[in-house]
Amino acid sequence: MSTHAHTQFEEGNSGYVTYFKDKGKLAIPPAKHLAIVTCMDARIDVVAQLGLKEGDAHIIRNAGGSAKDSVRSLIISQRLLGTREIAVFHHTNCGMQTFTTPQLREKLKASAEESNSEKVGAAADAIQFLEFSDLDKSVKEEVEFVKTHPLILKETEVTGWVYHVESGKVRRVV
Amino acid sequence: MSTHAHTQFEEGNSGYVTYFKDKGKLAIPPAKHLAIVTCMDARIDVVAQLGLKEGDAHIIRNAGGSAKDSVRSLIISQRLLGTREIAVFHHTNCGMQTFTTPQLREKLKASAEESNSEKVGAAADAIQFLEFSDLDKSVKEEVEFVKTHPLILKETEVTGWVYHVESGKVRRVV
Repeated sequence: MSTHAHTQFEEGNSGYVTYFKDKGKLAIPPAKHLAIVTCMDARIDVVAQLGLKEGDAHIIRNAGGSAKDSVRSLIISQRLLGTREIAVFHHTNCGMQTFTTPQLREKLKASAEESNSEKVGAAADAIQFLEFSDLDKSVKEEVEFVKTHPLILKETEVTGWVYHVESGKVRRVV
Repeated sequence: MSTHAHTQFEEGNSGYVTYFKDKGKLAIPPAKHLAIVTCMDARIDVVAQLGLKEGDAHIIRNAGGSAKDSVRSLIISQRLLGTREIAVFHHTNCGMQTFTTPQLREKLKASAEESNSEKVGAAADAIQFLEFSDLDKSVKEEVEFVKTHPLILKETEVTGWVYHVESGKVRRVV
């Protein structure tokens, strides 16, 4: 890469600022009392893909769209900012279907410098990378995880979905 | 709430699908080799706010925009999908500046049913909620955390920013 992306952030931002208008008046709590968990994948713009708008929902994103990796955020969303609905999204053609945790740990260890290998090995072994193979099965497990978590409010409406990157369509799983 | 937000997802999605066009051809690896960490806040649309587009960057979002809570995702982003730049964003008027971990733990425990109180207490005590008071200081700490993490590639370009919800402007901190 000749140029880092961040060198263009301020110029890119100046365009956004010109049509910012009265968005500065939006409240902190999400208008639709909704928290969405979805993947970090670059092809995902879940707000546009669901016909939502800025201010409507908390958007939690991580590798895979893992609710298990979102508990801290979900609790803050519910207890401090009033959300009462959670929608978990996975998507087709996801990077999480292409590896296993043992494989990735080996890759991390293999690239460590010798002086650092013990530290890297311990750090790698401490992480569960939360990969999955079957999309629908994983979505169902995530929804079940959320519904039965002791720190998630019992009255929460929880649904599970798959986003299809080939067509832009969403499909409800549970 | 009379209606849950998810009952409108399919209808909202149908509009997106009509102008989806050739987005289905976008590759999995982010075109700009960039991973962004930012807050789940409903007012944030970091892709638009930086003049980026779908396909450009991994977007990792959680309560506060915590890199500490993003290590699993950052490793997958770098080792499996080739990103080599990380930008960490916090934002003004953030919910993470309004509480402390001990306060939130107490709130969780106080709302537990008696039959479940032991389980709730243990689960609450196991979570660090990663709140902060000083935005710039926290951004600097996050960048330092990423730069020194044993599993993050040494050649990674790491920058830290604040997004201003009142004006739509971004400001570089480090």
